[in-house]
Amino acid sequence: MEIEEMSENECLALLERSTIGRLGCSLEDQPYVLPVYFACEARHIYVLSTLGQKIKWMRANPKVCMEIDEIASQSQWESIVLNGRYRELSEPLDEVEVSRARKLLGTRHRWWINALAERRTQTDDLSIAPLFFSIDIESMTGLRAIAREESGASPK
Amino acid sequence: MEIEEMSENECLALLERSTIGRLGCSLEDQPYVLPVYFACEARHIYVLSTLGQKIKWMRANPKVCMEIDEIASQSQWESIVLNGRYRELSEPLDEVEVSRARKLLGTRHRWWINALAERRTQTDDLSIAPLFFSIDIESMTGLRAIAREESGASPK
Repeated sequence: MEIEEMSENECLALLERSTIGRLGCSLEDQPYVLPVYFACEARHIYVLSTLGQKIKWMRANPKVCMEIDEIASQSQWESIVLNGRYRELSEPLDEVEVSRARKLLGTRHRWWINALAERRTQTDDLSIAPLFFSIDIESMTGLRAIAREESGASPK
Repeated sequence: MEIEEMSENECLALLERSTIGRLGCSLEDQPYVLPVYFACEARHIYVLSTLGQKIKWMRANPKVCMEIDEIASQSQWESIVLNGRYRELSEPLDEVEVSRARKLLGTRHRWWINALAERRTQTDDLSIAPLFFSIDIESMTGLRAIAREESGASPK
């Protein structure tokens, strides 16, 4: 197996075809990681959420990290780690961007069912409006592993 | 789709059959998330690593979060989020535990190849010793989504 760095364009291509990532935020140096469905366009990662711990934490500390990967096997995978900033979208101020995020997410996910179901476990209030946010990418690095013929080394 | 909480035993069962998780650490409230191969036994999550950013950060701030999931589809998945503390294992002090971690990881992963390959991208020094650490679980919660017949709601 060989590991090589991915170019910026290769990272963006993986982001654009991916639908799930692991989002990390932190508050008072306690990290918090959770899976999110997303859509990416022009270095913005759009996520639909309802109000919960992650939103409260990212409002308090907008520095976030996200990991996105495609793992075919232990010796064949791609993984991106990116740093970005949380930016909450609100209507009518961000109406155009919310509309775009809604369209991007709607074509790829059954996101409305997931979000409502998630919320339903915590409250009976089904009228809670969904909340869109963007992770604006500031930097990212990607690594790719490629399977090669191995010489059969084994652990001690 | 319905979402329900997983019991402690269901969380532990998922941890014991999983091999990959997303580890989050943070330093000065900058989160960092990356995938790790692991093995879990008795509320300890064992990971093999070489020295890098994550080790330096966890030495400085041992509070970590880990997310582990099995995603069959968007409406059928299990996901655990756990908080724990980073604890570095060293020989000869932790010899018994290192030996156990080596055995647990060795039977499930080609971990030695991955770790060396990762290191090889950064340095020509192949003699760098692998480093084992444990995430000692302090708390965890799990959610499970179960597909049900839907009434065909669609996004606006």
